Amino acid sequence: MRNIKLTIAYDGTNYSGFQSQINALAVQDVLTRGLRKIFGEQIRLNAASRTDAGVHALGQVVNFRTSGIIPVERIVIAAATVLPKDLVVVEAAEESAEFHARKHAKKKTYRYRIRIADIFDPFRRNHCWQLNKALDIIAMNSAATQFIGEHDFQAFSSIKRSVKTTKRIIFCADWQVLNDELVFTICGSGFLYNMVRIIVGTCVDIGSCRRAVDDIAKIIESKNRELASPTAPAHGLCLLKVEY
Amino acid sequence: MRNIKLTIAYDGTNYSGFQSQINALAVQDVLTRGLRKIFGEQIRLNAASRTDAGVHALGQVVNFRTSGIIPVERIVIAAATVLPKDLVVVEAAEESAEFHARKHAKKKTYRYRIRIADIFDPFRRNHCWQLNKALDIIAMNSAATQFIGEHDFQAFSSIKRSVKTTKRIIFCADWQVLNDELVFTICGSGFLYNMVRIIVGTCVDIGSCRRAVDDIAKIIESKNRELASPTAPAHGLCLLKVEY
Repeated sequence: MRNIKLTIAYDGTNYSGFQSQINALAVQDVLTRGLRKIFGEQIRLNAASRTDAGVHALGQVVNFRTSGIIPVERIVIAAATVLPKDLVVVEAAEESAEFHARKHAKKKTYRYRIRIADIFDPFRRNHCWQLNKALDIIAMNSAATQFIGEHDFQAFSSIKRSVKTTKRIIFCADWQVLNDELVFTICGSGFLYNMVRIIVGTCVDIGSCRRAVDDIAKIIESKNRELASPTAPAHGLCLLKVEY
Repeated sequence: MRNIKLTIAYDGTNYSGFQSQINALAVQDVLTRGLRKIFGEQIRLNAASRTDAGVHALGQVVNFRTSGIIPVERIVIAAATVLPKDLVVVEAAEESAEFHARKHAKKKTYRYRIRIADIFDPFRRNHCWQLNKALDIIAMNSAATQFIGEHDFQAFSSIKRSVKTTKRIIFCADWQVLNDELVFTICGSGFLYNMVRIIVGTCVDIGSCRRAVDDIAKIIESKNRELASPTAPAHGLCLLKVEY
């Protein structure tokens, strides 16, 4: 059996998230259906990340085992003929038998886009959280720095899913100004459920002076989700890349 | 009666074009419905341009007469509460009684985005015409220059609509490279039906060496639509602004 790794990009707007669920259209459903056409057999995907409804990806990674014979260098083009335009295979590679897209992921990088303007931009409605009040980016960057390192991020996780440990390592986290946007980039060993969006929500509360930079350490220590700020909307979030 | 001028922006992806038609959802339908809520009466719009299905606008202009009493400075915010996120009122102004958004337009500027890349970008699927072969932008700019001035553009118009004259003045037309995109900006006294998209289609044929720069003058002179190239797809086009 071959073990194929795909890097995929998708606009999450019209999907219920990556993972299949009842009564909704997930990225996984559409991708699996497309791959079945290319490989001539049922495909079972492992995905690096379960992105939520409305969350986008530029570099999601999946793998699957197949006895299908299509040469690896033809997969990208073949996928373009069977997938809708909001779901694209960016790269395909043959991996060793043991490679697993989720279990072997070492680093994930997410980006969150906030747009600050009086007038709403219809073209970015699905890709930026649009706010109409200025934010203090210096305070937000002071806050972002507090997340770096190994911490127990239980307070920054929605309680829906059980995981073995709520400790994660954050390698970098910072806010940058890009024209009328504030763009947050965060890279970590992994992320708990809703973790990036709760971090963003908390940074925005700090940037709008609703809470203090010093709160971060206290919230982390508390392990109490209720002390962190509300979860930022899904559509500002994008999975940029997964490293192995 | 007050005469209100609105500048509006919309993502044309989910609309059948600006103008109302049977069995389809037009920008005009949604805008009229929203304005009725704000002004408390039926609104009859005049629009500067009838953009086609899938064509976008950053600066479409409409006007209407109303006895509604909402102050002009509150219209933008009120509109945001009644319109969907893909349709935004950017500016509102009170005009003199005779102002007419279509009849008094002096200049219109359109932009057309082409993206050149091997891999399709799902995030720009509704806003760029994506091609995978390099184009000769120098040839395309030589072609663009030929359109400048007053010409009879009958050859660059679909025959669906009758107009008094097919002469138009083009003030500027040029292609620019912006990262992985070729962006065409064209400004004219007005445009015939499909005119920008046929000009773009012809420039692309020239940029890919399927025809010569010298063809432009011959096509213009011929007044024959069949001599120009196929119409470029709608979704790359955006109405940037209308000047009075």
